[in-house]
Amino acid sequence: MADTHTRAKTGAEALVSTLADHGVTACFANPGTSEMHLVTALDHEPRIHSVLCLFEGVATGAADGHARVTGNPAMTLLHLGAGFLNGGANIHNARRAWTPMINVIGDHAVPHLRYDAPLTSNILGLAGPNSVWIKSADRVADAGNLAAEAWEASFGPVPGPVSLLLPADTAWTEGGKPGAKRERPKLRAPDADRIAAAAQAVRGAMKPVILINGTALTPRGLAQAARLKAAGIRVLTDTFFARMARGAGIFAPDRMQYFAEGAMADLAGTDLMLVAGTQVPVAFFAYPGRPSVLVPEDCATLIIGGPESDSAAILGALADTLGAKASADPAPLDLPGMPTGALNAATIGASIARHLPEGSFVSDDGVSNGLPAFMMTGRARPHEWMMLTGGAIGQGLPLALGAALAAKGRKVLCISGDGAAMYTNQALWSMAREGVDVVNVIFVNHSYRILNIELARTGAGNPGRVAENLLGLARPEIDWVKLSEAQGVQAVNAATAEEFDAALERAFATPGPHLIAAHVPAR
Amino acid sequence: MADTHTRAKTGAEALVSTLADHGVTACFANPGTSEMHLVTALDHEPRIHSVLCLFEGVATGAADGHARVTGNPAMTLLHLGAGFLNGGANIHNARRAWTPMINVIGDHAVPHLRYDAPLTSNILGLAGPNSVWIKSADRVADAGNLAAEAWEASFGPVPGPVSLLLPADTAWTEGGKPGAKRERPKLRAPDADRIAAAAQAVRGAMKPVILINGTALTPRGLAQAARLKAAGIRVLTDTFFARMARGAGIFAPDRMQYFAEGAMADLAGTDLMLVAGTQVPVAFFAYPGRPSVLVPEDCATLIIGGPESDSAAILGALADTLGAKASADPAPLDLPGMPTGALNAATIGASIARHLPEGSFVSDDGVSNGLPAFMMTGRARPHEWMMLTGGAIGQGLPLALGAALAAKGRKVLCISGDGAAMYTNQALWSMAREGVDVVNVIFVNHSYRILNIELARTGAGNPGRVAENLLGLARPEIDWVKLSEAQGVQAVNAATAEEFDAALERAFATPGPHLIAAHVPAR
Repeated sequence: MADTHTRAKTGAEALVSTLADHGVTACFANPGTSEMHLVTALDHEPRIHSVLCLFEGVATGAADGHARVTGNPAMTLLHLGAGFLNGGANIHNARRAWTPMINVIGDHAVPHLRYDAPLTSNILGLAGPNSVWIKSADRVADAGNLAAEAWEASFGPVPGPVSLLLPADTAWTEGGKPGAKRERPKLRAPDADRIAAAAQAVRGAMKPVILINGTALTPRGLAQAARLKAAGIRVLTDTFFARMARGAGIFAPDRMQYFAEGAMADLAGTDLMLVAGTQVPVAFFAYPGRPSVLVPEDCATLIIGGPESDSAAILGALADTLGAKASADPAPLDLPGMPTGALNAATIGASIARHLPEGSFVSDDGVSNGLPAFMMTGRARPHEWMMLTGGAIGQGLPLALGAALAAKGRKVLCISGDGAAMYTNQALWSMAREGVDVVNVIFVNHSYRILNIELARTGAGNPGRVAENLLGLARPEIDWVKLSEAQGVQAVNAATAEEFDAALERAFATPGPHLIAAHVPAR
Repeated sequence: MADTHTRAKTGAEALVSTLADHGVTACFANPGTSEMHLVTALDHEPRIHSVLCLFEGVATGAADGHARVTGNPAMTLLHLGAGFLNGGANIHNARRAWTPMINVIGDHAVPHLRYDAPLTSNILGLAGPNSVWIKSADRVADAGNLAAEAWEASFGPVPGPVSLLLPADTAWTEGGKPGAKRERPKLRAPDADRIAAAAQAVRGAMKPVILINGTALTPRGLAQAARLKAAGIRVLTDTFFARMARGAGIFAPDRMQYFAEGAMADLAGTDLMLVAGTQVPVAFFAYPGRPSVLVPEDCATLIIGGPESDSAAILGALADTLGAKASADPAPLDLPGMPTGALNAATIGASIARHLPEGSFVSDDGVSNGLPAFMMTGRARPHEWMMLTGGAIGQGLPLALGAALAAKGRKVLCISGDGAAMYTNQALWSMAREGVDVVNVIFVNHSYRILNIELARTGAGNPGRVAENLLGLARPEIDWVKLSEAQGVQAVNAATAEEFDAALERAFATPGPHLIAAHVPAR
């Protein structure tokens, strides 16, 4: 290896070392020819751990998981426009989680672009919609400074994925300089006027609720939420959130329901909705004749701070203004007994509640089977729950991979539908290579079960033969044990509650990645 | 099932029936909630065969393969922006193959869009760069006509993928009307002035070459190419092409080399390059100090017709103008003997040449191991070769799936690198469900071998530990037999030339999908 400290840096080296200077510690990569100098630069950068992913959707989902654990952006390395597209769905999900992420996209050498070679595409165009910031480092002298700017921009004003294009000639040319060090942007502090207005509105309300997300879901934020609850305000989280602390010793807020009709019934009579760290709630999908905005008609809404704000501080300031002295009780430790009999989402939830280790992370891409597990773990040992926020399935396994690499020494549980897990099954291989402590529970029902529910809800009629084919994963049934073992992750089938409980206990007790194929009913 | 002929059509039904009226016979789909009425419409449309794909990149690659065989666009059904992104890389590849394709992208109901629900994205923005036509059917009365317009637009002027967004409320609302029938656009006929100019240039050239693609690669076109060859013009195809007829009885043109330095050496002394059905050749990637345009400095270029033209007709018109009476000989039938010993790309090529059935299709995503198989099959039984044109790996298996569904009664051989096949391994499941006659040969070298070659070529230096990790697929080695069996496709390992030869012969003789894991050297 050449001594990189005594010779001039390439643009690739300036980019990589600048990101490392700013605290980036992981790169999830699938490189191609145009990224060879980035690969060499990573070879020379011991502060960044490079992880090969066999599909870019794994890389971007893993970067999201890594950032949710560390609070700092991870880097991805993507091969031109095609690599970005492959990683795009999990970038969309990260944008909806307000996760900082730095996507470094290799591009052709600038003078080569005008020849429209086969892999050329309009990357600024196709990547723009899912990037909170996007630029191309067309000059080697700019590579370091643009890396620093990208890092800063990933924190916002509203945090999210940024895209930094690195043309091959910038990457290979010497003359790169480290980017000037930037300060990490802070979330917005509470606005005193809005806090006062919110307190006044609460005093005049019969049935107030506060909808929270962001830092309000940390232990610090939830402690403040418990004060608001004691002061008579119902505390509700978004249906989906990037990360929430929960379990024994932590105040447990309610959660917004997924289906619009359930959410509206749950909110009946609410006359004030405060919003902190998120947006006014809307239905995930539209349905014929059903509302889009999930706020009762006579309910006033008041946004104290959006996702750009430090919602934990907002809750604290509001509780102070209201003079809240007491706090609602935190959740007790209450572990269910050993489940028996048929395996289903509820018995799986009970086993998870029994065995989930203290300090673990959960990556939830469980679709229709995820809710019981969530509900039953509210009184489990303290843990952190991470959800699919953007609705693009196939996030669970990659997110767990990235989280586990960031949370060394802590266990990660991934719960995923079989349809969702197929999307990015290549994550299993990276889990095996990295030896991460991830327990993957796949709900095997050989069905896009949620869509069978939605088919009825949208009024699309009863499924005929074609529709049943388009919503069913049977014929052939996927053998999840073989699929997992093929990629180096040990796996077992579980068909009863007892089998699952034993398998889960064993998996948490044994280092390295595991997969449990949990055979649950399709209906 | 309701009688759809006596009641009003929904927008979804108008769209689907209009596409069927125009000859669309296949839909490769992964639907979500916003596409439930499209699913119901497909349920009522017996003229379209709907195929579930467990990842959208499979759907778009299969639509490409289906269209390459039939010459008509297939339909895909994608779930909002995230579904498009997942299918995006193979849409990019289809754009580079000039393949007509109709991507139907479900979207939120129009009045729901402004609430920015979690799955909302700027689909027109992100899908635009890889669409030759894009519109959103925001009014139910327009759905049928826009479907007809999309079908027409997929044929060009330059053929390629089109994107038709279908908001959920357009899909579910009644009032849809069938789109007015459109005529299929024709490729551009030869331009008499350019033919005359080309003939004159040929007469004055010492060493002329004609670079061809498109309809010039059909048996009809190659018969005309043989006349040009006999008239003293070297005939060269693009390095990568959507489809070419070849084997015994068919004139075999030369093929442009992939690496720029090889291509330039091969073209040394060429003083005239005619271009028919394609573009002036450019290097796939830029390399420090190497040319982008693959035309010698003193060589004149003359574009007779681009990809929008009927290049077979151009070759015929040029041969007539030159008074070409003779034709170069077609390839003879010349099958190699049984290969023995160590398994490598050459012995695999020999076995393929021996056993490739007459009339079969080959889907080539073989990356560094594909070239020997191509070279050794030039004198095999007549067949059709389909290549990865856009450089985004992961096309081979999906393309084979779609081609096999279109080419009932004919065999499809897919050759793929292991790194490429991992990208869209979910195609195996759809092959099993559909029972297609596809033989998948995976070159298992546990390496992105091409990148180890490119690392040296780009001057990025010798790989260190990190670089070796980023370019190598070993640790753990993927068990391709298990991965295939997990998805319902029978599979075998082959480690010697004899084993591979026997396995290939058996696979072609047995109906349904097969996979052969061909263990080849990494270097």
